[in-house]
Amino acid sequence: MVETGKTASLLIVGNEILSGRTQDKNTNWLAEQLGEMGIVMQEVRIIPDIEEVIVESLNALRKTVDYVFTTGGIGPTHDDITAESVAKAFDVSLERNPDAYQALLDHYKDEAELTHARLKMAMVPHGAELIHNPVSGAPGFRIDNVYVMAGVPKIMQGMFHGIRSGLETGKPILSETVSCNSAESVIAGALQTIQDKYPNIDIGSYPSYRDGKPHVNIILHGTDEGDIKNSVQEVQEAVGRCVA
Amino acid sequence: MVETGKTASLLIVGNEILSGRTQDKNTNWLAEQLGEMGIVMQEVRIIPDIEEVIVESLNALRKTVDYVFTTGGIGPTHDDITAESVAKAFDVSLERNPDAYQALLDHYKDEAELTHARLKMAMVPHGAELIHNPVSGAPGFRIDNVYVMAGVPKIMQGMFHGIRSGLETGKPILSETVSCNSAESVIAGALQTIQDKYPNIDIGSYPSYRDGKPHVNIILHGTDEGDIKNSVQEVQEAVGRCVA
Repeated sequence: MVETGKTASLLIVGNEILSGRTQDKNTNWLAEQLGEMGIVMQEVRIIPDIEEVIVESLNALRKTVDYVFTTGGIGPTHDDITAESVAKAFDVSLERNPDAYQALLDHYKDEAELTHARLKMAMVPHGAELIHNPVSGAPGFRIDNVYVMAGVPKIMQGMFHGIRSGLETGKPILSETVSCNSAESVIAGALQTIQDKYPNIDIGSYPSYRDGKPHVNIILHGTDEGDIKNSVQEVQEAVGRCVA
Repeated sequence: MVETGKTASLLIVGNEILSGRTQDKNTNWLAEQLGEMGIVMQEVRIIPDIEEVIVESLNALRKTVDYVFTTGGIGPTHDDITAESVAKAFDVSLERNPDAYQALLDHYKDEAELTHARLKMAMVPHGAELIHNPVSGAPGFRIDNVYVMAGVPKIMQGMFHGIRSGLETGKPILSETVSCNSAESVIAGALQTIQDKYPNIDIGSYPSYRDGKPHVNIILHGTDEGDIKNSVQEVQEAVGRCVA
């Protein structure tokens, strides 16, 4: 993995992903956003809507990275238990947040519309700071290094755009791809030699099939411009030798 | 989560997923397949190509579920370290497997084609049983309850089809969906009541937007036919009352 000085992980609370009902799209989107900011996504966990699993996973992840993002489970229904689980993980109480209440009131316009279910979305852990929801009113929140966001991609993305500027970025990640119409085993030896020569460059080899023929993308990540340039050149030369 | 008597987890070894370069497709496909077999996917972890992380994650997961599937990291290049990491997790040696060697020979036809890099793909943990690769020769393997498969979806799917009949299935999962053109908060109270009445049915509420308007899918999972039928009927009645 590239080292940029900043790390993150993502905790997806989602029975619907685990059942195969829904294709997760948040991992890919968030990973790209964080990558642009020099924040390395270190791990993703997809877990069910079960309180003790959320508490345990969150407590494992938040101690090892700079930022933990969670998605899912902050809506108004009985299966939305992320906020109370996060409060448990931090051993603080869950309380009605006046600003969250106001955000819901602004969204639903009328106090009579604030049903018992909707008011659940104003409950956040003590000490948390709200994350604005530009789509549907109900806010997310941050507590310590944990950012709790909605699971619906459109809402999650809106929330992330709001917090993005407040995150400390890492060294920019430089990324280059060298492609090769051959089986990856043909260039494996050369790649090993180049990887050993440039330990701070992360060289990945990703095989696939195009029109039934083997194809490889060799992807180089790093933060040092000179090393990226030199290692890319060496990979290009190795690929040229093998394919020719 | 539905209880069927059989559980699984998936460990994705994949820097390319964590960097946002590649959209994971294996979670969704495998979750659907397992669901059809009554095997509940309990957790998914996406981790980097780092030996100690693979060892630690695998050892955490394999003790809590019936089956662990891994995808990725079993190719011929320097960044393919899953086989040796799995051997470390089980504290066994990595050794050349004669049947794996033969499978590679059958695929590449000519012994001269079996380069040092390709021979790496014949190395499996001591005591492991091979998983046939119908696409590209290099096999996966099973050791204890851990099934090690390729990351390329086409190959992973081919491998899974080969092992599928050898997995013990759980009680069939019955799944029903009730849709509703309203905000989920409107039906939250009714859903809570129904969920409390049917504790062995897993009722999930999944909001989205269609043409800018709120929409909810209420998904009911369970293994008891009568309870599914009755709970679905109650949800339909609740939805009908709210929308009307």
